Amino acid sequence: MTLIRSWVDTANDPDCPFPLNNLPYGVFSTAGSAPRCGVAIGDFVLDVAALEKSGLLPLTGAPHLDRGAWNPVMSAGSAVWAHLRKLLFGHLAADSGTRDQIEPHLYALGAVTLHMPFNVSEYTDFYAGKNHAVNVGTMFRGAENALPPNWLHIPIGYNGRASSVVVSGSDVRRPWGQLKGPNDDAPRWAPCARFDLELEMGAIVGTPSEGPISVAEADENIFGYVLLNDWSARDIQAWEYQPLGPFQAKATATTISPWIVTKEALEPFRTSTPAREKELLPHLREPGPMLYDIDLTVELAPQGAAPSVIARTNYSQMYYSAAQQLAHHTTSGCPMRAGDLLGSGTISGPTPESRGSLLELSWGGKEPLTLDGGATRSFLEDGDTLTLKGACKGAGYTIGFGDCTGTVLPALSDPYAR
Amino acid sequence: MTLIRSWVDTANDPDCPFPLNNLPYGVFSTAGSAPRCGVAIGDFVLDVAALEKSGLLPLTGAPHLDRGAWNPVMSAGSAVWAHLRKLLFGHLAADSGTRDQIEPHLYALGAVTLHMPFNVSEYTDFYAGKNHAVNVGTMFRGAENALPPNWLHIPIGYNGRASSVVVSGSDVRRPWGQLKGPNDDAPRWAPCARFDLELEMGAIVGTPSEGPISVAEADENIFGYVLLNDWSARDIQAWEYQPLGPFQAKATATTISPWIVTKEALEPFRTSTPAREKELLPHLREPGPMLYDIDLTVELAPQGAAPSVIARTNYSQMYYSAAQQLAHHTTSGCPMRAGDLLGSGTISGPTPESRGSLLELSWGGKEPLTLDGGATRSFLEDGDTLTLKGACKGAGYTIGFGDCTGTVLPALSDPYAR
Repeated sequence: MTLIRSWVDTANDPDCPFPLNNLPYGVFSTAGSAPRCGVAIGDFVLDVAALEKSGLLPLTGAPHLDRGAWNPVMSAGSAVWAHLRKLLFGHLAADSGTRDQIEPHLYALGAVTLHMPFNVSEYTDFYAGKNHAVNVGTMFRGAENALPPNWLHIPIGYNGRASSVVVSGSDVRRPWGQLKGPNDDAPRWAPCARFDLELEMGAIVGTPSEGPISVAEADENIFGYVLLNDWSARDIQAWEYQPLGPFQAKATATTISPWIVTKEALEPFRTSTPAREKELLPHLREPGPMLYDIDLTVELAPQGAAPSVIARTNYSQMYYSAAQQLAHHTTSGCPMRAGDLLGSGTISGPTPESRGSLLELSWGGKEPLTLDGGATRSFLEDGDTLTLKGACKGAGYTIGFGDCTGTVLPALSDPYAR
Repeated sequence: MTLIRSWVDTANDPDCPFPLNNLPYGVFSTAGSAPRCGVAIGDFVLDVAALEKSGLLPLTGAPHLDRGAWNPVMSAGSAVWAHLRKLLFGHLAADSGTRDQIEPHLYALGAVTLHMPFNVSEYTDFYAGKNHAVNVGTMFRGAENALPPNWLHIPIGYNGRASSVVVSGSDVRRPWGQLKGPNDDAPRWAPCARFDLELEMGAIVGTPSEGPISVAEADENIFGYVLLNDWSARDIQAWEYQPLGPFQAKATATTISPWIVTKEALEPFRTSTPAREKELLPHLREPGPMLYDIDLTVELAPQGAAPSVIARTNYSQMYYSAAQQLAHHTTSGCPMRAGDLLGSGTISGPTPESRGSLLELSWGGKEPLTLDGGATRSFLEDGDTLTLKGACKGAGYTIGFGDCTGTVLPALSDPYAR
């Protein structure tokens, strides 16, 4: 696929994250106005709510774009998704006949506030990166028992907390929790001392389902993808997670990037999951490539200091695709809804530099990471800003997601000491 | 507390589950009409949506009762909860001056359809019954390691799946899943063979919160309680739950009773959690009694046969109250919303007859249960109807919840063989 040219000049720069090929969906506001749907193009956001209102984006039924969330478009079905994208292409292509009507609805990206692009119905987090699972398993159970017996057969996942999902730019307050180290006699109530990031992709369900669906159907039902940082309190997790899994360790915040990159935009970058050590049961086999070639980086900037890249990896490192995860999610008959968010699990590559969490990068805190300025990190410190970036590289163009960023605020004084 | 008399005669029967003391909140419809809010009184449901429309239930702001869910009332705040209850008392008390205006809005309970009483925002399930945890732990890990080390210090919970919560009377389809027995070489795809119930109470969050809240605040924020059956596929669970907890094993369905019994109605039945083996950290200590004395029974009726009572226990058997669970849920800063549902965990008493799951009643299938008609059960069979019942016994009156019932339908033919 090559660049599709737009009359929005900045969209034609090969390094611009938002060319006409992309058209990602967000929610924005300008000073004094209500949040509404927008589409990123070049250095601008296009006010598609205004376009719909003026009749330039005729979709069937009630207005879809004025609600401050993309859920109504998701719920309208995949024919509407395709129709909307086609209309946007028509308006924004270099040979558009409607430029004069569209141009007044562009706002400079730097001048708008971005909000959560959709209402998260429910949030599920997976554990589907093999390098991550092996690394964590090796640290906790030894190299010989690194992968749980089920790991090569099902995409292991757990339900997360939708109410804690926030948009990029939201500060994240270091949590308190119940902690008990291996040498402590009893648990204590203290601020988390091993606060971490997890580099993930998030897949958003657009089409609801009631019963079990196939991997191919699951792929059809996905609306788009975001970058996702699943902030994790490792010390809270260590004490709480047996026997029923992570709970408060993962409930402080999960940050997503502000733009939903549609499946259509990612289509040229499809790639397959790796070869299988164990043949999957038929219902989990992929009928075609369902991962995507997305370069991912993590930057850490201590307060007042320049960012250091602490990890570089690629979404194609996953062992299970989002379509496989979604199919598995429905096997028991679990109903899925528009706006369900599925975290991929931490995306770590095979090399030390490609690990998607500080737990792995510092090997459980035993090998602190040295940042560019000389500072070291085992886990996150107050004031640290984490930024995830993602990009697909086409011929003369880039598909970007917008930064997924958040700054760690210090823990409050004891919230119960009052 | 004694019976408060109503002009609705059937509400004054000491065994009636819906006296004036109760006033539980549900959602009902009659043939051809839309679901709307109703309140149970005696043998009737009172159409409170109609009363609000006609000005007989003046609440502040937009209509609250015509939406087919009680969430708008929850969100209106506890002053509105108290005001609504006071208005209902006035209209329905024996000395009411408005009987003539109210009576036309009563519908016979037997002639209406009951729906989900609220929209479940998110669903969390706990593991807070000590007898249950000891029983299950003994079966899986031996008596000496029955309780995980954290169990006496925090109410262990995991996030469940809100989309799978259904109202009493909904059939439950036996799920398929990935299964692997200890003697199997590889996992297989098959219908669940160890389908089970879990007898629980559900607490409903009414007042949202953003940061950590105390146990006292958590108690204030709870709107009411329902009976809850957390259907569980034990064989799916056994293969999937390590290391991140139950997922598809708990996603087929969770059934709740149709009436939300308010905290106000339960007030006279408050009781304390049991004495502690380990002192809790201060933020989890109860400032007063926060469990309730609610008698609970489970009935199992094979297809075409009479029901047998298979368990009798009491909610006061829990080790942690819903207020403690909700407080713990917020420790990491997790935002809670109106409509969040918290399952108590399986409520088992100390005796074999008081166990709240077939896993425990049949001791992992090793000691099948004999029903009244002579049939035996290790786990649920197709056509079995499960019914949970709950009642608080006051002086001359009963607080009931309405049955929490569901029938097991046979598994579909392989959903992927097409």
